[in-house]
This record gives sequence, structure tokens and C-alpha cells, in this order.
Amino acid sequence: MDKIPVGVLGATGMVGQRFVQLLAGHPWFEIAALAASERSARRPYGEVCRWVIPGEMPPSLGGMVVRECRPDLPCRLVFSALPAEAAGPIEEEFAAAGYVVSSNARSHRLDPDVPLLIPEVNPDHLGLLEVQRRRRGWKGFIVTSPNCSTTQLVLALKPLWDEFKIVAVNVATMQALSGAGYPGVPSLDILDNVVPYIPGEEEKLEREPLKLLGQLEGEAIKEAELAISAQCHRVPTRDGHLEAVSVKLGRRASREEVVEALRSFRGLPQELRLPSAPARPIVVREEADRPQPRLDRDEGGGMGVVVGRVRECPVLDYKFLVLGHNTVRGAAGGAILNAELLVAQGYLN
Amino acid sequence: MDKIPVGVLGATGMVGQRFVQLLAGHPWFEIAALAASERSARRPYGEVCRWVIPGEMPPSLGGMVVRECRPDLPCRLVFSALPAEAAGPIEEEFAAAGYVVSSNARSHRLDPDVPLLIPEVNPDHLGLLEVQRRRRGWKGFIVTSPNCSTTQLVLALKPLWDEFKIVAVNVATMQALSGAGYPGVPSLDILDNVVPYIPGEEEKLEREPLKLLGQLEGEAIKEAELAISAQCHRVPTRDGHLEAVSVKLGRRASREEVVEALRSFRGLPQELRLPSAPARPIVVREEADRPQPRLDRDEGGGMGVVVGRVRECPVLDYKFLVLGHNTVRGAAGGAILNAELLVAQGYLN
Amino acid sequence: MDKIPVGVLGATGMVGQRFVQLLAGHPWFEIAALAASERSARRPYGEVCRWVIPGEMPPSLGGMVVRECRPDLPCRLVFSALPAEAAGPIEEEFAAAGYVVSSNARSHRLDPDVPLLIPEVNPDHLGLLEVQRRRRGWKGFIVTSPNCSTTQLVLALKPLWDEFKIVAVNVATMQALSGAGYPGVPSLDILDNVVPYIPGEEEKLEREPLKLLGQLEGEAIKEAELAISAQCHRVPTRDGHLEAVSVKLGRRASREEVVEALRSFRGLPQELRLPSAPARPIVVREEADRPQPRLDRDEGGGMGVVVGRVRECPVLDYKFLVLGHNTVRGAAGGAILNAELLVAQGYLN
Amino acid sequence: MDKIPVGVLGATGMVGQRFVQLLAGHPWFEIAALAASERSARRPYGEVCRWVIPGEMPPSLGGMVVRECRPDLPCRLVFSALPAEAAGPIEEEFAAAGYVVSSNARSHRLDPDVPLLIPEVNPDHLGLLEVQRRRRGWKGFIVTSPNCSTTQLVLALKPLWDEFKIVAVNVATMQALSGAGYPGVPSLDILDNVVPYIPGEEEKLEREPLKLLGQLEGEAIKEAELAISAQCHRVPTRDGHLEAVSVKLGRRASREEVVEALRSFRGLPQELRLPSAPARPIVVREEADRPQPRLDRDEGGGMGVVVGRVRECPVLDYKFLVLGHNTVRGAAGGAILNAELLVAQGYLN
Repeated sequence: MDKIPVGVLGATGMVGQRFVQLLAGHPWFEIAALAASERSARRPYGEVCRWVIPGEMPPSLGGMVVRECRPDLPCRLVFSALPAEAAGPIEEEFAAAGYVVSSNARSHRLDPDVPLLIPEVNPDHLGLLEVQRRRRGWKGFIVTSPNCSTTQLVLALKPLWDEFKIVAVNVATMQALSGAGYPGVPSLDILDNVVPYIPGEEEKLEREPLKLLGQLEGEAIKEAELAISAQCHRVPTRDGHLEAVSVKLGRRASREEVVEALRSFRGLPQELRLPSAPARPIVVREEADRPQPRLDRDEGGGMGVVVGRVRECPVLDYKFLVLGHNTVRGAAGGAILNAELLVAQGYLN
Repeated sequence: MDKIPVGVLGATGMVGQRFVQLLAGHPWFEIAALAASERSARRPYGEVCRWVIPGEMPPSLGGMVVRECRPDLPCRLVFSALPAEAAGPIEEEFAAAGYVVSSNARSHRLDPDVPLLIPEVNPDHLGLLEVQRRRRGWKGFIVTSPNCSTTQLVLALKPLWDEFKIVAVNVATMQALSGAGYPGVPSLDILDNVVPYIPGEEEKLEREPLKLLGQLEGEAIKEAELAISAQCHRVPTRDGHLEAVSVKLGRRASREEVVEALRSFRGLPQELRLPSAPARPIVVREEADRPQPRLDRDEGGGMGVVVGRVRECPVLDYKFLVLGHNTVRGAAGGAILNAELLVAQGYLN
Repeated sequence: MDKIPVGVLGATGMVGQRFVQLLAGHPWFEIAALAASERSARRPYGEVCRWVIPGEMPPSLGGMVVRECRPDLPCRLVFSALPAEAAGPIEEEFAAAGYVVSSNARSHRLDPDVPLLIPEVNPDHLGLLEVQRRRRGWKGFIVTSPNCSTTQLVLALKPLWDEFKIVAVNVATMQALSGAGYPGVPSLDILDNVVPYIPGEEEKLEREPLKLLGQLEGEAIKEAELAISAQCHRVPTRDGHLEAVSVKLGRRASREEVVEALRSFRGLPQELRLPSAPARPIVVREEADRPQPRLDRDEGGGMGVVVGRVRECPVLDYKFLVLGHNTVRGAAGGAILNAELLVAQGYLN
Repeated sequence: MDKIPVGVLGATGMVGQRFVQLLAGHPWFEIAALAASERSARRPYGEVCRWVIPGEMPPSLGGMVVRECRPDLPCRLVFSALPAEAAGPIEEEFAAAGYVVSSNARSHRLDPDVPLLIPEVNPDHLGLLEVQRRRRGWKGFIVTSPNCSTTQLVLALKPLWDEFKIVAVNVATMQALSGAGYPGVPSLDILDNVVPYIPGEEEKLEREPLKLLGQLEGEAIKEAELAISAQCHRVPTRDGHLEAVSVKLGRRASREEVVEALRSFRGLPQELRLPSAPARPIVVREEADRPQPRLDRDEGGGMGVVVGRVRECPVLDYKFLVLGHNTVRGAAGGAILNAELLVAQGYLN
């Protein structure tokens, strides 16, 4: 088939660059427009974008002239890596104009009629799209992907939720520098240090999973009922968020059952063989000292999450580690997988 | 008064060096002997000891000839920084020979008749010493200090335990490189990484607090009853363990009560004005992003612990951060404070 | 004597903070005014200044209200830590109004009538002050301190220049993060990396030494004649610039003569016992692996430079390492020492 | 053609792992034997080898039983990643027994009858092999690759040597942690630090280029005549040695000529299209701040070297930066390219 032309909003930032990198060799999509702030518009991408992620900027895109974030882009699908301050109204403008917006920004994540989507977790929430279009009178629509630290946690929780229910979750994160964007964390703040605070992060991590694990009932999501407590820390790693998780399950389960639930988990993207879907969404490792950010963040091309050290917890029921690539699965890659699901399910026709 | 001559066993290692540094300017103690393994014995300290901690080796000690770890040292009080493999029998030998041994090794920590001591927490456990001497027929005795990650946790738990009781504790640690000694963690393992496993650490952190918070009943410690779950991680910081803690209290308490209990906490070392006792054992900070290892590890000369971000926990009752200097309060400094208490209470007479 | 009231211009930045820290306990000076940009003015220092250097902000200054950088400060001596963009005209305004300005900014360093001063190196250049005042019609004057990487290099070159003359210098630097100020270098740029470029740095390092080693002849400095080649690199260290230097001397000299010249070097600040003067401006170490930034940057309270690995060079004559604390001797401490010399020599009367 | 069976001596160390990784997908070679010390022998590779380089151990090799380093391996070509202490006699034993040994160890590099080889630089030095065999009475032979910091330097010097001759070279290195092997540099030594000393490194860097750029005359290499001064430093980067180089040329040349010589350089491996040969052995970048270890070390699959910041030098003639991947081109990759040249030129027939 011909490739589907797509645009990237906020293409010069760090997540924008990941979109560009992952879309450059994508089998279904083709970049037709790179859009950014007024300041960058009308100049070549290679000139206005200070490339900061590993690998080189795709050479074919260096000469593409950056456009403003206005709904006149030559495509129907746009990915949004806009900063939250700007994302809200711009994404709405695009959706109103008929664009399909796959957003990584937080602005609309908790809107009742906007799907907050992880394709392996809650593909049925796309049922909200009809509601969204009708209520808002839009020709297009917005789909959002969760915060980076949320995505990997919920991927690991989903099979436990399905099998055993979950009553409570305690999570302490050790998050990578790239999660703060570029320039992000000053080196003087983090060399030989840990910063035990990331503005807004704990709130997102305690709230977004409730919507993701919730049920589409009629025209709304009924949020899941479980208690989540998050403590978020920035550590001097480049990529890959590590999370120390404990869970209290809804029913008794053996360690073997827990591991088996995690290990055998597959979702719709695996079934549909979506191009960005990892063969195994969750890889369970049995070594005593894994997962580690540097060694495991690229699992499944950065789209898999790695679980390790599953063991009994003297306070809740089980504890384990979850690692995911925060700017691939946790950001651009996640939003691309969302778009692949939209395509596969005919939402772009 | 004349200074009390002391010896350091295992003086060439990293904790040994901290002992040497802290004792070099000590108002009560004076280093009379540095002892180490056979391999280092009979050579000058300055030659066999590769100094790896901040600051220079005290110049006056560079020429002191290192001795073997045999009970013929010219002092009655010895500090043990021996590796656990060696500490067990050597410490016993010294105690049998009449030495007072203040040990930082784990070998005897859980012996029923050996005090595991934090002077602010359980000074009355020194009552075990009479039992120890009687049972073992020793003229001297052994007192131990807890594992580094335990000490700071229990210091922060103690006022809560006293005021509200504690039912459960969940703790995720981010521990500094110096905790692994020297050479310790290879740089290739930890640059741009977190290692989510420290052998034996979680076991110590789940067990030692029960003894520390326990009650001396007759000739034994009745361990405290509370559930502790620990997840331990090594991060690329030099000094200062950071711990993300959640607690379930025995009774309802407001945030203000919790903070007030922490902030107003004082112990016997403060009352006795022991030289190494920090004015405030616990410093509570109210900034959103503190404590941080690099900024807060030297609080109270490394003898204070810093608590921050006290807030409600959706799963247990309260959560907060605890930071302590792992090789000062958590190791050498802790054992020196123990010895100061012994002196103040007449155990060296 | 009563302390001399002083002001700090640009007090909220990283170098400004070093001024505040070093002046807080100064025996001669007392902070009477903290000045900064319009944005910070009229608010308490503790509120507008994000303290980023080791140690806490001096508590007594947290409440001092920040003033604008206008020549109405209640003092006669001001230290300038202003950014180069702002320093030029503001410093002139102060000097015109009668203030003595000890500046760390680069704006006036190469002005023919402004002393570029290292007290151990060229105290006689203060002879320019009379020229400066006369020509400019100022009641006050400006004295500048060199760029951080220059100061430590020239301190090490000075005794060689005096004893042997120097024909050529090759220097490759490994400079600390704090040299870029705060927020400065993004952590994503420098973790697991070296950045081989610091804008403007090589030019300063190739030019400023010529003035510093030059001769005051009549009303001008005749620059020294020697060739300098600099290659500057940013490395992930917090403080302390390390420089790999090779020199071609004007006459033959043995290694012993070179070392002896370095080791025995003393200057006017040592003779006058200025409060910030290190006992030995240059410490020569003989270990194979010193100086190291982390171990040696605090030599002489950060005011000494450490030279090591002096050895023959197959291309030029000798090569060695020089380490200095870039924000102490190389910035605030250097400018304070300059002011101490001014006081000692009666320039403030 | 059928793949050529090869063995790896010292397969469990860091360089050994790079050999395994690079050979796992090699188009000409196939691993037939992994050999290591007595201690590892007779156990599966996956069990005795703690994999420390990026990427996973090739799964097909995890089960291969490690053999001792004795000349009974089922192959004729062996790669040696043995530590220098062991390499000398073992490599001789293999060569005597008829094996072709492509070694990365330093033991035989300076033997007069052993080629020290970089295929782009001195392929004609293979003429020594006949001498070697004859003199030593061996059926096989030994070819060596240079020290990591040498290889990249000499690759960059070669076109300048050929075009302009070189009179003198000054080089200051900033070398990666992986150059010290595993466990190598303790994290406490290098966090927030630079170590300005690498045992033996400066000697190698000042000596090996003379042989590499030398001429095969009759039965010996006449070393090149040029002065080299090296200053070597360890910095906290994982992979990629950065070198700040200045050169004095044998004749005047414009910057354009110098850049053109570097940029247009090709060697025999490019002509022969050897599988590991990068298309361009030297990539010249014009950005002000490149090359950087993290961004440029993987150029040409780690087999290319990157030169940047070519500019005039006030002391010698030109200065520039050279970056290379120390464990790929500078170690295993270099030795594999050597073997490819041997195959292409019929030395294995």
C-alpha cells in the first residue's frame, strides 16, 4: 500500500525527535510535515533542530522546511509532541479541522471523552471516539498516550489486574534524564546526586492508571478502583525509567501464577502484528540484578517492558521491578503504536 | 581528661579510613593502633593504605606502623571495620581478651546477647552486655552498629514508633557507591545506570529494625512486631543513601503530628551531649525537592538524618524520604557514637 | 579594624554565590549589599537565589533585600560577577561614581588601561590604575581577574617564565561543569561524554597570559612574547579544571630546576600574608596519578594550584599537569585576593 | 564460500566479548572455539562469561563449552584477546603449531619480525611474515594490532604523513572506561573526576606510531622519524577515546589541503572492500563541537575515526581532534580487519 502521510507537531523537541526517528523508517507512515513553534517555522529542520537523541537526524529530513502548527498540513494524521502549555488548543484545532491527532501531551489525557490509550491494555476505549466527535462536533479526533512512567507501570499491572485484580500499588521510580526533555536537568543538579521530586509526576502516576484500567460503560470510562502511591525520583541515567513496585492483589496467587501471568501476556497489537508492537510486551527476567536501565531499555526496540525480581512482599503481596524506555514506549513509540491501532481498526478511513 | 587510646581493626578499608578520619580529631579518643590483614602488617599506614575518601589522610598517622589484628594492641577500646568474613572470630578473640569492641561488621549483629545499638534509639539494650559477658565468660564485650541503610531508616522510624506505633513499612532505597567499599562497584556497571540489587541488603533492612525497635525483656530482646518490605538499588552517587519510605501507623495521626514527632525527636546522646551526637538527630526539610544526597549528606557532620516530603500515602498512611551519610552515621560515625555512649555510661571503667 | 563594607554585583549567579560564600566569613570584608538584575531586585536574597554550590547559603544573608546594580550601594568596594553582556557598562558606571570594582567578568580584561591581575604574578600592573583614572576621568577604577582556565595556567607558568623564559606553551584542558555557570551544561549533553568546545575559551587562554606576563612600560603593558596553543574540553566533573601543559623554555633547564622553580614560588600575597593567599601558590605532587580534580581542587582552600607529573616532553621541553579550582581561585576567590592586595597597598584609602 | 572457522583466546574478558559480538554475524568467519583461562574451561560460555558490553551475548554461543588456550582448537585462525601477562608464550605456542594468530595483546607488537598492522596504514608490513616464519621456524604466524589510542591517532596521521611528512606530534587523550577492561576503573575513582594517568599508555602512544609509519626495508621495519609527546587521561565516558592532537608538518600546507588529505584518504581495505572496512576510514566533521564520544563513536560501525576542529596551531602547525571506538576499531574490530586482510591476500591458504 502507499504510505500514509503524517505530520509531527512539536518536531524540534526531544520527543519530537523520537517521533521523527521512529517514523523515518516506518513501514506504514511517511513524514509529510514537520511543524513547530513560530520561531522555527519557515526554516529547514536541519537548521532549527538541535538533534540530541542517539543516532543521526534522518538525512532526508534535514532539508524539510518546518511549518507552523496550523491545520493546513498535507496529511490527515498528526502526532503531537507539543509542550503541555501549547498542546491543548492546538490539538483541538487540528481535530476540529478533521485531523486525527495522536498526542503524547498531557493536556487532554483526562478529558472524559478522550481515550487515554495503551493498545495492549484498553483498545476498547477507542469507543469514546464516537462520543468525542459527536459532543464536540469535530470531524477529526484526539487520542492520547499516557505519561512515560505510567505506560510501563500499567503494562506490567494489566495482566495482574485481569487475572487477580489489584487492590493497591506502591511504586518508587528512578527516572531517566531524557524524561525532562532538552535542555532539561542541569548537569550540576544531578552529577553525584538524585533529585527526589519531579513536578506533577506523582499525580499523573497515581491518577492515569485508574482511567487506563477502567471500563468503558456507555459514553464514559468508569475508573478502576485501586489505591496507588507513587514516589518519583530523577537519577543520572540517560534513558529508561526503573520502577520498584509492590502490589496487593485481589485474590491469593502463587509467585508462579504471577510470573506466568506477566510472561504470557499478549494484547491486540501482538495479535494484529502492528509494526511497532513488540513480540512480547512484557519480558520477565530471572537474574537477581535485572532489569537495569542501560542493559534493558532497548528490549523490543524500546517497545517492550522488562520485569524482574518478582518476589513476595512482606507488606503487600508481591514486589518487582519494571523498566521501560521512556522516550520510545513511554512517549513517541507509544503514540505511534496508538496510531497503528487506529489504522488497523479503520479509524483513518 | 587524658584521651582514651583506641585501636582500629581493618583500618585500611573504606570504613576503616572513615574511622581514622573521624578519630583523628576526636576530643575523647586517640588512635593508639591501626590493625589490618597480615598483608599490610608491619608497614607504615601511609604506604599500605590507598586513601579513597574525601580529604587527606591525617598526616600524623601516615607513619604509624600497621599491626596485625591480634589482641595485643595498646588500648582497651577497639573499633572494628573488618570485612564480615573475618570479623566474627577476631572480634570474639578481642572481647575474650578483655577489649571493648565497637563493631560495624554484620557478624554479631543478630547474636541474641550482643547489642545492636543506635544510641538515640535503644540505649537500654546495653543491658545485654552483662548477659553477654556472663554467658561467654568474657572480660570484654562486643557492641555492634547496624547496616548503613538500617540506621537512617530506624532513626526516622523511632519517633513514629514511640508516638504512634508502626504496623508496616515499605522502603525503596537509592544507595551510594561508597556503601560497596573500595574498589566496589565497577564504573562500567553504574555509569548511566542503576543496579537494582545489593546482595544481602534487603534481608538486613527487613530484619535489623525489628531488633533495634525491640524491647529488652529479662536477658533477651523481644523483637518488635511490624512488617518491613525493602527494595534496594545502587545509584551513581558517591555518598548518602536516599530512602523512599511509606509507613502504616498504629493509630491515626495528622501530618502535623508526624512532622512534629520527627522534628522534636531527641535521644540520650543529645541529652548527654556526646561529642559525635548531632544537635538534632532528624532534620525535617519542607522544600519540595529535598533531601538530596549531594546537598544534605553532610547534615550534622554526617551524623544527622534528613527527612523530607512528608505527605499522606494513598496505600499506607504516610510517605517521606530519609537521607543519611552511609559511611559516617551509617558506619564509622555510628560506631564511634556507640563507644561514646559506653564511655559516658561507665562501661569502660 | 572595622570590616570594610562591600557589595556583590550579580550575586545570584554561580560565581556570585561563591563571592557570597567566601565573603561571609572574610576577616576584612563584610557584605553590605547584594545586587542583581532588575528581575531579582527588591526581594530577599534567600528567595531569588537558587543556591547551587556546595554548602548552605550563609543564613544571615537570606533575608538581605537584593538591590539593583546601580551606583548607590552603601560601600566603596564592589565585586562583579556580572555576565559579560551586562558587565561592561555597569562596571564603568560604578568606577565613574567612585567605586573600586574588582571584576571577574571578561568585558574589560583586555582594555589597555585596566589591570588584568593575579597578585602573585603581576602586582606591579596596578600602576595602570593611575592611567585609567586620569584618562577616563574616574574617581574609582576597575581591576579584573582572568578567565578561570587562564589563572591556574599562568600561576604555573610564572616561575618558569621568571627563571627560564618560555618560548611556547601547548595546553589541552579538561574543564569542570561549574565553569559554564548554572543551569549551564545540560546533563544529557555531558553524561558519558566529553564536549570538545567551549565558546571563546581558547581565545582567552591564548591571549590573556600575554598580558599577565607582560611588562608595564610607561602607561601600557607590553605583552609577553610567547606562542600559546589551547584546546579546551568540557568533562563531567563538578569543580576543578585540569590542564595538560607542555612548554618550550627559553633556556635549558633540568627537571629538578623546573620542579624547584615551581615548588619554591612565592609572590607578594604570601609576603603580605593576605587573608585569601594560600601558603604555597603552587603545590607540586610527585605521585604518578595526581593532580585529580576531585582530590586536589580544594588545595589551599581552593586558592592553591596543584602541579603534577612534571616530565620531559619529546616535542617541546617539559610537560606537566595543572589543576585549579575554577570558581574559587579561578573566579570569586581570585577577585577577592585582588581586592585584598588593593587594600594592603592603600588603593582603598 | 564456506565460512572460515575461528577461535577466540581470552573470550570472557571485555575485548574477548567484542570479538564474540563482532564475529557472531561475520560474513567470512564463524566461531568454532572459545578459549579462556583454566578457571573457565569446560564450562558453558554463558555461565562463565559476565557479559558487560552493550547488547546481549549472541544466544547461539551461550551453550558453547569454553576450552583451554591450547593449540588443539578446531580452526586455523585465532584471535587473541589475552591479557598481556599471558599472551606472549600462548600466542607463540599457537603460531608454532601452525595457527594464524591475530592478536590484540601488546606482547609481540614491537618484536622486529612481527607486523604491527593497521590495514589502511601499512599493509605491506605483512612482508615480515615470511621473515617471522623462517627465523622462528613456525608454520603459523602472529600479526598484532596496535594499542587502542594508537590506532585512531595513526589512522589520522597517515594521510598527513603521506602528503606532507610529519615532524612532531603532541597528543592529549581523554580515554574511555572500557579501555581499562572489566572490572577496570572503580566508580569511586572516576565519578566527578579525571584520572591523569594510565600505566604504560603514554609509552605505547609515543612508540607504536613510529613502527606503524615505518618502512619495510629488507627484513626489518625502519621506524619513522618523528617526535611524539603523549599525555593520557581517563575520563568518565563508556566508549570512545578522544584525542587532542597538534602536528608539525614536514612542509607548508593550507588548512584546505590538510582537510582534503584527511577526507579523501582511502586504504587497501576500502579498495578490497573488506567486510569490516568502513567506507571512509576518516570522517571529517566541520561543526564547532564535534567529534564527541557519545555521538560519534559508532561512526562506520565503530570502525571509522572522526576528525574535527581542524585549525591552525600557534605552536606547531595544525591542531585537531580524533575520536575512535576503542574496543571496536581500537581492539577487536581492528584485529578482525587484520585477519580479513590476511584472508584477502591469501595468507590463510
